[in-house]
Amino acid sequence: MTTTAVAPGSFDPVTNGHLDIIERSTRIFDKVIVAVLINRNKTPLFNIEERVELLQDSFRDFSNVEVDSFDGLLVNYVRSKNANVIVRGLRAVTDFEYEMQSTSINRKMDKEIETFFMMTNNQYSYLSSSIVKEVAKNKGDVNGLVPPHVEDALKRRYNVT
Amino acid sequence: MTTTAVAPGSFDPVTNGHLDIIERSTRIFDKVIVAVLINRNKTPLFNIEERVELLQDSFRDFSNVEVDSFDGLLVNYVRSKNANVIVRGLRAVTDFEYEMQSTSINRKMDKEIETFFMMTNNQYSYLSSSIVKEVAKNKGDVNGLVPPHVEDALKRRYNVT
Amino acid sequence: MTTTAVAPGSFDPVTNGHLDIIERSTRIFDKVIVAVLINRNKTPLFNIEERVELLQDSFRDFSNVEVDSFDGLLVNYVRSKNANVIVRGLRAVTDFEYEMQSTSINRKMDKEIETFFMMTNNQYSYLSSSIVKEVAKNKGDVNGLVPPHVEDALKRRYNVT
Amino acid sequence: MTTTAVAPGSFDPVTNGHLDIIERSTRIFDKVIVAVLINRNKTPLFNIEERVELLQDSFRDFSNVEVDSFDGLLVNYVRSKNANVIVRGLRAVTDFEYEMQSTSINRKMDKEIETFFMMTNNQYSYLSSSIVKEVAKNKGDVNGLVPPHVEDALKRRYNVT
Amino acid sequence: MTTTAVAPGSFDPVTNGHLDIIERSTRIFDKVIVAVLINRNKTPLFNIEERVELLQDSFRDFSNVEVDSFDGLLVNYVRSKNANVIVRGLRAVTDFEYEMQSTSINRKMDKEIETFFMMTNNQYSYLSSSIVKEVAKNKGDVNGLVPPHVEDALKRRYNVT
Amino acid sequence: MTTTAVAPGSFDPVTNGHLDIIERSTRIFDKVIVAVLINRNKTPLFNIEERVELLQDSFRDFSNVEVDSFDGLLVNYVRSKNANVIVRGLRAVTDFEYEMQSTSINRKMDKEIETFFMMTNNQYSYLSSSIVKEVAKNKGDVNGLVPPHVEDALKRRYNVT
Repeated sequence: MTTTAVAPGSFDPVTNGHLDIIERSTRIFDKVIVAVLINRNKTPLFNIEERVELLQDSFRDFSNVEVDSFDGLLVNYVRSKNANVIVRGLRAVTDFEYEMQSTSINRKMDKEIETFFMMTNNQYSYLSSSIVKEVAKNKGDVNGLVPPHVEDALKRRYNVT
Repeated sequence: MTTTAVAPGSFDPVTNGHLDIIERSTRIFDKVIVAVLINRNKTPLFNIEERVELLQDSFRDFSNVEVDSFDGLLVNYVRSKNANVIVRGLRAVTDFEYEMQSTSINRKMDKEIETFFMMTNNQYSYLSSSIVKEVAKNKGDVNGLVPPHVEDALKRRYNVT
Repeated sequence: MTTTAVAPGSFDPVTNGHLDIIERSTRIFDKVIVAVLINRNKTPLFNIEERVELLQDSFRDFSNVEVDSFDGLLVNYVRSKNANVIVRGLRAVTDFEYEMQSTSINRKMDKEIETFFMMTNNQYSYLSSSIVKEVAKNKGDVNGLVPPHVEDALKRRYNVT
Repeated sequence: MTTTAVAPGSFDPVTNGHLDIIERSTRIFDKVIVAVLINRNKTPLFNIEERVELLQDSFRDFSNVEVDSFDGLLVNYVRSKNANVIVRGLRAVTDFEYEMQSTSINRKMDKEIETFFMMTNNQYSYLSSSIVKEVAKNKGDVNGLVPPHVEDALKRRYNVT
Repeated sequence: MTTTAVAPGSFDPVTNGHLDIIERSTRIFDKVIVAVLINRNKTPLFNIEERVELLQDSFRDFSNVEVDSFDGLLVNYVRSKNANVIVRGLRAVTDFEYEMQSTSINRKMDKEIETFFMMTNNQYSYLSSSIVKEVAKNKGDVNGLVPPHVEDALKRRYNVT
Repeated sequence: MTTTAVAPGSFDPVTNGHLDIIERSTRIFDKVIVAVLINRNKTPLFNIEERVELLQDSFRDFSNVEVDSFDGLLVNYVRSKNANVIVRGLRAVTDFEYEMQSTSINRKMDKEIETFFMMTNNQYSYLSSSIVKEVAKNKGDVNGLVPPHVEDALKRRYNVT
């Protein structure tokens, strides 16, 4: 069986928690497409091209990872890529309920697409893109929370030297 | 990539919720081993041989499903079968916290083994082996909760005619 | 005892999950008033008159349902209608905590008004007005999630043909 | 509409939290049947006759409360009493998930029976029969947790003077 | 050991729930600094000076309470005050997960600073600054939810007479 | 202010998670009494003297830690030691609800005793005495989960060589 998985998210910016989930899924699935959601309602810190680039820099050494962006319904995107699996990380109970809702509606729209959840590694269970931005904006140390090139991008964006 | 997944559980007895999770995983993984845990501390309704047989009857038409039983640590069993994935169903928040604990300890013992969670289908989200036994014991109707051959086995066990 | 229940909500728009809760409560209470909250801070998809009309179309065949809108504190509205019960649906843990807070403050303001919760039917447990709008906006299929006349209203609003 | 509600439980023994829920429901429903579950697997502190008597003493002044006991499936009992409503108190998230499961299975067995949940009053949200027994056994003060006649019964049972 | 604790928050405005937590912590720690977070992204009902003043009025009779405001990362502020403890109230599961995340990131940034959580008194478990503002804005009674001088300030702000 | 804190538990056996919570609390409170609960209903793996000894070995280098055991109500024990604080670790939502209940009942019995909760370090958030025993019994590696002398005690108890 050849399995292509899609790992969707905002990735504004990618954190070490995201990297952990995606790297672990590359060992199980033949191909993993990291797909940045284009959300026109939110004002992101990094625009869609920047977010894709930060992800590409993160997965340069992975032959079975593709970084992409998408608009509209996730199930339509997954089908268009001939993928059959969605991969998501779970950190906490509030995550769990939100994901349960999304997964149910996705299943209603396309029963052939399966969603798999992976438990976030304990050391990253508190980590989110929002908290990373909050720390970086206040000139706190984000070392260990994001990869070095994302740390640099955050410093440039917030004018931290 | 060839991926063998292990779906562990007590399966005392197997329910339609279990069947749903396992059937869905057979579409993604090359092989799925349904593994009945031998728990010497509990007094089950069906003994280990009966539980294995009820599962075998359920997956007679699946060429990539194997039914087995195991004793001791799950990670040791998974390694012994050359499997690299554990599959588990998630129904509710209390499930989630228990699974988070097990998965963390399993990861500590073997980082190569990955655990994937699938959200139980909404129609089975209330279903458990215990509630099925409770209903059957009180001569309630378990049709739609378990496959027909398990319904028969429950009726025989509880002397319902 | 004659019991009038109020089923308050935003209903932007009404979903099959709302209909299920309200229909079930009409079998227990003598009269059910479906009350659309006028929230001046939010920009709804459907204005208050449209939301009331979509609800009226949904309950045309129910002799003991009245559709209304209200402003200000719920307990004041309930008293003004000589009602003594508030009916709410519960889907998930996050719902539960929010409802626990509202119910406590309502009880502090008026001990005579009782709030009853009903568990949302499993098949609708993932459903919310927001997720319906998200799907419809992206031209996904909302059949089975909302009644046909709401589906039409969503298509007109989002220019889906 | 004439509505008879059943308030089922173990009531080993009845606490002020139970009394609060039942008293509040007597103001909404025409008749409330407090039904003690006969659970043959557990060893209760008070036997079924004692539990019924402690409840009868609690509701002596309520003309629309009946105290009874039952065996087997709750839905069968509810039907046998021509009741159409089950009333349950909710204290916490763990309650919520358990109740969600029971309610779903009851609905599967009988769609005509509706379950209503009431939020336990804040001052009793920590209260359970188990914690009352734990305190009483260790000669702690249960005043305010149970009615006076239950306090006396607990003292006699644990030989506290 | 001399222990200085910081009790951070938005306090827009301070409620009886906040007062309860802070008063209880003054009995354990040598000094408690109530620190109002200056959040430039939100539009508060009371500005920072007003919030500090409402707090100062609340703790006039406490010799070991200091009211202050701060900007930026909490751990930096705590260090600057030579404090070693952060005190937070916990009301519900959603609080718990948010606090778990903040505490983990704070610990990552400074292992010497300890965070202690206190369970909010049952009678205030439903209380939040937002719900107080919602009630006051709709001319509901906030007596018992906030101290009298905050009740006055709310009435003036919302032109309630 | 001189503050004595009691850290109660079953400690069957003490884990690295317990050690982390207790060590962190010794930096804040003048004295910490680690108090093993004598629970006559459960059959522990290590008896009360063994559990006390394993704890004493763990805190040999801490001048402000005392290890003790107690029977009956925790609040009575805390008072008898002239302590005013109870310290507890929180790992997950299910912990949280149980602790909320215990704390409320303890506060009802003695308002002067304050309970402080500390979030368990992420790396130990999955850890419990039960899971340690489960792993050790199945001859899994508990290194990193418990201190070395507890690892030895577990091996002796389960005849692992």
